[in-house]
Amino acid sequence: MSDHEAPRRIAVIGAGAVGSYYGARLAEAGHDVHFLLRAQYDAVATHGLRVESVDGDMHLDTPLIHRNAEEIGPVDWVLCAVKATALEEARDLIAPCIGEGTRILALMNGLGIEDRLATWFGAERVFGGLAFTCINRGEDGRIHHLDYGDVTIGHAQDDEAELDAALALWEGSHVRVERAPVLLAARWTKLCWNIPFNGLAVTCGGVTTDVIMASPELRAEAEAIIREVVAVGNADLAVRWQTARLYPDTVIESMLNRTETMGAYRPSTMIDFVEGRPMEVDAIFGEPVRRAELLEIAAPRMTLLHAQMRALGVEA
Amino acid sequence: MSDHEAPRRIAVIGAGAVGSYYGARLAEAGHDVHFLLRAQYDAVATHGLRVESVDGDMHLDTPLIHRNAEEIGPVDWVLCAVKATALEEARDLIAPCIGEGTRILALMNGLGIEDRLATWFGAERVFGGLAFTCINRGEDGRIHHLDYGDVTIGHAQDDEAELDAALALWEGSHVRVERAPVLLAARWTKLCWNIPFNGLAVTCGGVTTDVIMASPELRAEAEAIIREVVAVGNADLAVRWQTARLYPDTVIESMLNRTETMGAYRPSTMIDFVEGRPMEVDAIFGEPVRRAELLEIAAPRMTLLHAQMRALGVEA
Repeated sequence: MSDHEAPRRIAVIGAGAVGSYYGARLAEAGHDVHFLLRAQYDAVATHGLRVESVDGDMHLDTPLIHRNAEEIGPVDWVLCAVKATALEEARDLIAPCIGEGTRILALMNGLGIEDRLATWFGAERVFGGLAFTCINRGEDGRIHHLDYGDVTIGHAQDDEAELDAALALWEGSHVRVERAPVLLAARWTKLCWNIPFNGLAVTCGGVTTDVIMASPELRAEAEAIIREVVAVGNADLAVRWQTARLYPDTVIESMLNRTETMGAYRPSTMIDFVEGRPMEVDAIFGEPVRRAELLEIAAPRMTLLHAQMRALGVEA
Repeated sequence: MSDHEAPRRIAVIGAGAVGSYYGARLAEAGHDVHFLLRAQYDAVATHGLRVESVDGDMHLDTPLIHRNAEEIGPVDWVLCAVKATALEEARDLIAPCIGEGTRILALMNGLGIEDRLATWFGAERVFGGLAFTCINRGEDGRIHHLDYGDVTIGHAQDDEAELDAALALWEGSHVRVERAPVLLAARWTKLCWNIPFNGLAVTCGGVTTDVIMASPELRAEAEAIIREVVAVGNADLAVRWQTARLYPDTVIESMLNRTETMGAYRPSTMIDFVEGRPMEVDAIFGEPVRRAELLEIAAPRMTLLHAQMRALGVEA
């Protein structure tokens, strides 16, 4: 925590791999972080929170853990890191944590997340956090932070002063944060990775990203899919009067370069797929495809992937 | 066999479900049909060839079966019904059966089959047979002919007199045959079923055709894929100076109507997929996609499906 930032009360709702990791980093920086846990409660009560990370291992021996949100009560910040498929349920978990000045950071994948949080709790307090990172939870409950870890943060109304407050929270922590002056542009940029790589990893039978990168034709498909996402994203930004734009060649180069260095990475949706859990199909594929239809932008590969992902998915 | 058609010597190369069924129908009609068998030799030697068919069950007690093609020797007709993935190997099995007047009917899926047979044995003797049918082989070796069964036959050089000879072979049999004046148009028409339905059945996790038909979005994808196949097919026909054309709406209506009545049908490629056998990816997806590229016709869904099928397939 920086000199000028007092410790904050923080509630982590959805303490999966991502929520646990970033919550642990904030606790490490001196904040008062409360984790809402269900299935993992006993394991964390016994072993604490163990993180193996490329940015330094850490261990919270006695993290503040709770079985229900009422016990936590109002906080300064809610870190919402549930799966997009569980957002509706998360509403009731977030509500008891909301006080007058509470802000909510949605550390989640997909499009339309902040819109829903804004409807429920007011747009002025809602932020989106885009974690470009490789984090899994191992069989033993240990968090494995394998690569990257930067979080790009934007505000639901692109308010600069609010954005300053969000970035200040992370000062003094091991997490590098970046400003997203236009949250929607950051969301579309993230989808330029998630749609091709989550989509191909699943529809090609549950493969790791290196398999996609090693096949000239799958790599070409990834590129072609990114071009579609960029086209839809730019149209979406334009109708919302945003001046931000994505540049296809730049995005493709950046996404492929990042993926190249990831090795045999298992995208989150692919892990859900091979383990038979609900996949984040609607937030990552459904909403983007609906916007493509509304905007009348051709997105044949995205549309086919969405239909396949829906067919392959289990119900949430 | 009709009054005016003498019994013919016929070799069935590739006596899987399709080859066995049509060979058995020709034997039933009085022709002298020799089956080349490997894995199934002992089962057929013991039980004969058992066919349960919507067009009438039949049983050949003592079919003429052989373990090698030299034993069969030259014939009037070779019925080549190997999987497209095994066509190269079939060349050596067909060669001993070729005499001066031998004709070859390829009862196979995909594009480019006749071209290869023509290169090896001469185009004048090569025919393509497109079986629009639902035939599987059960665990016990029994052939199950579930639906349809018509065969559309064309000649590699679209020679009308040759086509007459091919159709005459089936006179008096239980098989309804139809003329394809332009073989390439018939091939593309068949692909309008095989590409969407084999492709979606596999990439959606090994589902039956009724699952595709029952999902509005998968059905819409099937339609969109058919439109791509028609566009590429028409361009391919045009560069080969053929006047035949496919009409997208007509083809879509016909393919969806046929599929609607099939019930929970398992396309051949889907069966191969779930049983871990090589799939006919190149003949059904690869060659059409290569032609789309050469002709510069946009075929994004076909291209994505091809890349996924390649990734999902096992090597032949």
